Amino acid sequence: MTDSRIADLQASVPGLRLKTDPADLEHYGRDWTRRWTPAPLAIALPGSIEEVQSVVRWAKANAVAIVPSGGRTGLSGGAVAANGELVVSLERMNQVIGFDAIDRTLTVQAGIPLQLAQEAAREHGLQYPVDFAARGSCSIGGNIATNAGGTRVVRYGNTREWIAGLKLVIGDGELLDVGRSLVKNSSGYDLRHLAIASEGTLGIIVEATLKLTDPPPPTNVMLLALPSFDALMQVFDAFRARLQLQAFEFLTDRALHHVLAHGAQAPFAETHPFYVVTEFASDEASETEALAAFEQCMEAGLVSDGVISQSDAQAAQLWRLREGITESLARYVPYKNDVSVRLSAMPAFLAETQALLGDAYPQFDVVWFGHIGDGNLHINVLKPDDMVQAEFVADCDRVTRLLAERLHAHGGSISAEHGIGLVKKPYLSSTRSEVEIALMRGIKAVLDPAGIMNPGKLFD
Amino acid sequence: MTDSRIADLQASVPGLRLKTDPADLEHYGRDWTRRWTPAPLAIALPGSIEEVQSVVRWAKANAVAIVPSGGRTGLSGGAVAANGELVVSLERMNQVIGFDAIDRTLTVQAGIPLQLAQEAAREHGLQYPVDFAARGSCSIGGNIATNAGGTRVVRYGNTREWIAGLKLVIGDGELLDVGRSLVKNSSGYDLRHLAIASEGTLGIIVEATLKLTDPPPPTNVMLLALPSFDALMQVFDAFRARLQLQAFEFLTDRALHHVLAHGAQAPFAETHPFYVVTEFASDEASETEALAAFEQCMEAGLVSDGVISQSDAQAAQLWRLREGITESLARYVPYKNDVSVRLSAMPAFLAETQALLGDAYPQFDVVWFGHIGDGNLHINVLKPDDMVQAEFVADCDRVTRLLAERLHAHGGSISAEHGIGLVKKPYLSSTRSEVEIALMRGIKAVLDPAGIMNPGKLFD
Repeated sequence: MTDSRIADLQASVPGLRLKTDPADLEHYGRDWTRRWTPAPLAIALPGSIEEVQSVVRWAKANAVAIVPSGGRTGLSGGAVAANGELVVSLERMNQVIGFDAIDRTLTVQAGIPLQLAQEAAREHGLQYPVDFAARGSCSIGGNIATNAGGTRVVRYGNTREWIAGLKLVIGDGELLDVGRSLVKNSSGYDLRHLAIASEGTLGIIVEATLKLTDPPPPTNVMLLALPSFDALMQVFDAFRARLQLQAFEFLTDRALHHVLAHGAQAPFAETHPFYVVTEFASDEASETEALAAFEQCMEAGLVSDGVISQSDAQAAQLWRLREGITESLARYVPYKNDVSVRLSAMPAFLAETQALLGDAYPQFDVVWFGHIGDGNLHINVLKPDDMVQAEFVADCDRVTRLLAERLHAHGGSISAEHGIGLVKKPYLSSTRSEVEIALMRGIKAVLDPAGIMNPGKLFD
Repeated sequence: MTDSRIADLQASVPGLRLKTDPADLEHYGRDWTRRWTPAPLAIALPGSIEEVQSVVRWAKANAVAIVPSGGRTGLSGGAVAANGELVVSLERMNQVIGFDAIDRTLTVQAGIPLQLAQEAAREHGLQYPVDFAARGSCSIGGNIATNAGGTRVVRYGNTREWIAGLKLVIGDGELLDVGRSLVKNSSGYDLRHLAIASEGTLGIIVEATLKLTDPPPPTNVMLLALPSFDALMQVFDAFRARLQLQAFEFLTDRALHHVLAHGAQAPFAETHPFYVVTEFASDEASETEALAAFEQCMEAGLVSDGVISQSDAQAAQLWRLREGITESLARYVPYKNDVSVRLSAMPAFLAETQALLGDAYPQFDVVWFGHIGDGNLHINVLKPDDMVQAEFVADCDRVTRLLAERLHAHGGSISAEHGIGLVKKPYLSSTRSEVEIALMRGIKAVLDPAGIMNPGKLFD
């Protein structure tokens, strides 16, 4: 069925590339959550900022909702188009626009995949340090829209710290150019930080200027086996007291099980309840400190075994044990929680959560991993093959409500790095007060008075 | 003359400390700008967050404007009360509330002076690295409200980077608790970053949790004499390529002249057109690199002389040459511009600005200094003793309009770190687009629907 609005859009924005094939609608209408049935009106693939602005003006005039779309690797349903929205995909706007050696910035169109931006930085002898496993598919615009974290936050912080400027097309089609690579600019409200993590609800990020930094030192990767969850924070403390850690990630035995079943190589002859992947400079002083931390932890019974990479190939193998988890779980359509608390609240929260989930999910395979150095846990519940998805999700939602209560008690967040989107919307009030949510709605109405920007995501 | 509203406020908030003496009204009604005649209704000195909330609710109900007040060391008129406003001074809310060794945070009431917060961090073996000359008088709340910069930005960034959380009483008296020390929290709009640099127009910052970091290494201070303005960026490049700089500040011969007249000790036998104060670790490797950079600059004719501190006392003497400038100029009631551009735009902007000011101010003493590593210039025009202030300001405003045009052309900011307040309000549109300003007004109306929070500051 064709919709007269599509012809009208095409007439309004001549030259705009549009896709309306059912296969395209399905492809562009969903993200990695796979929980909603894609049903977009059409897919617009603008090639320039001006085209994005024209599309937004048309959408506003015609009261058509827009879903901004990057690599659609999101895990919260933020890029899902299940209600006749117009998907505005940035995939054709994927170029490096400029590099400045003095400012140490890289300016890119928002649709560029993270990995290509990283590579462009490296070609100039510098580093864009935000990193995670979806680097090949996710887009910088999507990274900014969720303030993506990843595996290097313990060293470099979240995406937010690395955005020197961005361009945003707001709900009336106007273009904001905010930040503009100024190190210092105290001239009123910081709309750049407002756009970051706004999940497409305030506008479409069309361009970004990324801060770059010196490349990381050559590094070693160490895999540690831990006898208990309780040991985790103590091992972290022992290592961070001695080393500048580039990463400190943990996974459970169940997580390792799935990665190994997916083809990774077993690191130890025996299995252990918990594992840590950590990375640090490979200079002599760092290696000495790392071994001292390791021995200290072994003596204290906090670590049962360990291996340190002897080559880049082995480092990559060890990293695969952590980075391969999400992919290895994909076939189980896992129910994901991505939560955070303050580091100081972590031990108590970990213990309570472990007990809660043990009681709540005796029948399910629960896979834990995460960025313990940032207070960020990923909890994946795997759907049994013989269970209907709706029933499984309902069962998990019930437990998420309990988890949200624990988070609220500890001052934590229901979304550390995935965003709220559709998936966590019912739990937003565990993390943000009703006053804050009302303010967010008010702010959205200022930037998007017609309410066409990713409506229904984050809040109703 | 007493105002019945004061009695009403006192009755509404029993126990609230109020000051209404003329001397107090004058003292609390102005900041370091000294351009407006203080005329507040009264001074409220709440002792708790609850009292702040009660005062705000009363002000909203009675349509009384509030001026949030910290150390009033601001240079943009942000804390001026010249229109019958109620000044809400945080000076009684000046305590350290908590320290967390694991999170590495210090929680303080917003009225605490910066220096006391720095000292509290040091007592725990850590550092709160934001620093500038007003440290003894300015308050953390004011620092946050302007996103204060200072002399360590080149190494540590602005205040914004160091705020793990803050509490804000918004225009209807509700309390926001945002940030909450979470390293990762992607749950919608970041209201913490919105409050930072909002200059009291969105609410009153009542509490802050500061991120702390490792203390700086022992350092050396080096003073360089430069033959020309053109050399400045090249000297910066030579030093930052070899060293992790803790600071890189410049001043002109006129600036040095005033500091010396104020009692500082002359560093060189001869005078030079420009000077740089830079600081770096005092380990052997850094000293070697610093001397190499110095020699390289000498050979290239970029530097004519230099001195390196041999003791902490000498380091303090050298720093005084930079930090003493503002105080040494105070008696001239200087007209201040505090502007920034991208580093890459700095050479062209410097050249244009030098020419512009040379032409525009042949009759005035113009003192330049600033944080060249952040792209931040301070331009102080000194009022001749025999000139009426209004006439002087009008003369300077004319030139600021020209300067604002140059800033606009270079994508710079009319306020790098002082804020917009009253002083720079006429020039806001040189830095922020009309669309942005309209959005800021809309956002203010969301957080402060009655328009009682520091009205007339930042924009009308």
